[in-house]
Amino acid sequence: MTRFRYLSFLTDYGLEDGFVAACHGVAARIAPHASVIDVTHLVPPGDVRRGAAVLAQTVPYLPPAVHVAVVDPGVGTARRGIAVAAGDSVFVGPDNGLLSWAVTASGGAARAFSLTNTGLWLATVAATFHGRDIFMPVAAHLAADAELAAAGTEIDVTDLVTLPAPERRIRDCVAEGEVLTVDRFGNVQLTITASDAAEIGLNSGVTALIRYGHHQLAVPYRDMFGAVAPGELVAYADSAGLVSLAVNGGDAAQRLGLPPGARVSMTAAPPTIRS
Amino acid sequence: MTRFRYLSFLTDYGLEDGFVAACHGVAARIAPHASVIDVTHLVPPGDVRRGAAVLAQTVPYLPPAVHVAVVDPGVGTARRGIAVAAGDSVFVGPDNGLLSWAVTASGGAARAFSLTNTGLWLATVAATFHGRDIFMPVAAHLAADAELAAAGTEIDVTDLVTLPAPERRIRDCVAEGEVLTVDRFGNVQLTITASDAAEIGLNSGVTALIRYGHHQLAVPYRDMFGAVAPGELVAYADSAGLVSLAVNGGDAAQRLGLPPGARVSMTAAPPTIRS
Amino acid sequence: MTRFRYLSFLTDYGLEDGFVAACHGVAARIAPHASVIDVTHLVPPGDVRRGAAVLAQTVPYLPPAVHVAVVDPGVGTARRGIAVAAGDSVFVGPDNGLLSWAVTASGGAARAFSLTNTGLWLATVAATFHGRDIFMPVAAHLAADAELAAAGTEIDVTDLVTLPAPERRIRDCVAEGEVLTVDRFGNVQLTITASDAAEIGLNSGVTALIRYGHHQLAVPYRDMFGAVAPGELVAYADSAGLVSLAVNGGDAAQRLGLPPGARVSMTAAPPTIRS
Repeated sequence: MTRFRYLSFLTDYGLEDGFVAACHGVAARIAPHASVIDVTHLVPPGDVRRGAAVLAQTVPYLPPAVHVAVVDPGVGTARRGIAVAAGDSVFVGPDNGLLSWAVTASGGAARAFSLTNTGLWLATVAATFHGRDIFMPVAAHLAADAELAAAGTEIDVTDLVTLPAPERRIRDCVAEGEVLTVDRFGNVQLTITASDAAEIGLNSGVTALIRYGHHQLAVPYRDMFGAVAPGELVAYADSAGLVSLAVNGGDAAQRLGLPPGARVSMTAAPPTIRS
Repeated sequence: MTRFRYLSFLTDYGLEDGFVAACHGVAARIAPHASVIDVTHLVPPGDVRRGAAVLAQTVPYLPPAVHVAVVDPGVGTARRGIAVAAGDSVFVGPDNGLLSWAVTASGGAARAFSLTNTGLWLATVAATFHGRDIFMPVAAHLAADAELAAAGTEIDVTDLVTLPAPERRIRDCVAEGEVLTVDRFGNVQLTITASDAAEIGLNSGVTALIRYGHHQLAVPYRDMFGAVAPGELVAYADSAGLVSLAVNGGDAAQRLGLPPGARVSMTAAPPTIRS
Repeated sequence: MTRFRYLSFLTDYGLEDGFVAACHGVAARIAPHASVIDVTHLVPPGDVRRGAAVLAQTVPYLPPAVHVAVVDPGVGTARRGIAVAAGDSVFVGPDNGLLSWAVTASGGAARAFSLTNTGLWLATVAATFHGRDIFMPVAAHLAADAELAAAGTEIDVTDLVTLPAPERRIRDCVAEGEVLTVDRFGNVQLTITASDAAEIGLNSGVTALIRYGHHQLAVPYRDMFGAVAPGELVAYADSAGLVSLAVNGGDAAQRLGLPPGARVSMTAAPPTIRS
């Protein structure tokens, strides 16, 4: 019996070395029936928060799988490895919060295990490459024939390390949040949700007043960036259900100077203000 | 019955986000029997012409497939989505010309459909991510069990948006064209074909006189870049049957300052001119 | 009968063009049963030595396969193409040394053939794209049903081009070597092995004296980079069994100014020297 047909794989390993391929090879040897879907391997080195955000926004579109994620600045130190059951999937990686947002997006942790069963690891473990020597072999065994409980010692799901939820709040018709991620196109994704926007009266067609640092901008809130002229700023509910700022055909992050983590607030402009 | 064993996938989504993986996940859920061949996801954002050129030059080497391509600066606006049968394959993407050169390279459009059957889309469609929510799910259904006609309303193939064919002409033994693409190595691919070159007397061993802007260069026309010394310029018929300019072991685009779209003309040098 | 379920694929083709996909397509047409594991396609253009190092360090973790590698600055010139049996795998590529370290890592060449059987090539061969037109089709045929001997003329394994083994030696308790590669994280991998280090008394907990150019540094030798404070230099035995220099959370190659090929020597510091 095979348990999962798919593995997914997210790391900060980059694509110029053979690190990702070595892990694919380990998966192929242990679970030749399984296909690996690469989520991304270009998480900035050690950026756990960025990895967590990409994983959480991608997993809802993946088939049931053992999801392996490794952004692990603490590799080789005391942080433990974990396997967590959530929804119809299993998450495997370091217990540093990387998996936590995706686990939440999958319905929360049902059970969790510390990866203490060395019988599922490669015979030799390099202190600096647990992706190849521990996480991927354990995941492949779980995809092939091992029961989740075989991964190691059960731990209380409340003991799992979690990243703080992205900051956002609504106060006096002002939605406050921060920049969660910036994508390839320079679109600035905020922690403010489309529901938050609706709650403060920001619906398509309305103008948003956006404040960050010493800046204030009036930006049209529309259904898509194509609704404004090329080169114009626009705010919209993006494909993950979050408010994003874009420049139609341009790079909003660069234009606005807004990196991940920057604080941003929004209100709906009174009807007399035009964008 | 499954209709296609392969999907191919070309976008400008980049590799640092989870966009490509979300589409792979959608394909895996709908058409688990199908393998996805990634053509490239590094088309410069919104560069429809570059995407069209890469797709057209790659498709002849791919197996019969549903080819999904998304370079779609107009996502969410009025441009329609299409499925086009050509040769032994089906092409799915926005009707903005992106598919047109590959369709031509596959023998021309036999039938075309506007993607109006929302039953083949994901249940929720984000205005800015039709690749995930419309194009890939439709393509996966076509690969799995849906007939092409199920994609939506049939449209006249002459109504499809096409990019103008790459400019080139021969006049008085001069071949005129432009830079079609520049590849990773800095090789400059012209719209001038190897047949054009032969027609004006440019065969291997002859010297080409190349003019662009205010520049004129005498460049050996050879079978391959390895035929000249390291660091030397050479013109040759490339692996797509087009004339390219290269520096053996170097970057011709940088050396010559020739970006895509730049106009270039060539003649065969009289026998007395040496390169 | 199929002979290999896997192909692996390493090149310097980059990911922005359709070159890699065209080769995947050729493999899918000839050997549809086979899965392709991409090792990397971001070898710096023409850097045979870098390609050889990545391949040799990755292959031990891949399943039995036909390993195709193409970093081929001499494409189209007189250098021959080869298929080499080593261990439980076959290596296919140009005879320029690219395969040699991986062949050695797989137990050495058992038999070797020059790719002279044009019946296994594509019908038309471009002088500049042997990966698509010769190497991948031959490899796919070998994975599908062709015997190794069908690839062409047998050649003496001692006639294969080999890269010189990475330079390293031990003299008077000094290990001398050079920088073999730099990875995505800026970790500097030396040709000096962990065994060399042990032989000169460098074990975890000891301080290493490292000399290069006019520089001398005292660097802690530890099990992993996480053993030193963030921002601190550390030497350690890496996941390939080689001594590497890292900055915990930083980029050692940049900090030290050490590119591939730079000469480095190491000794164990006397116990009185503290790092």
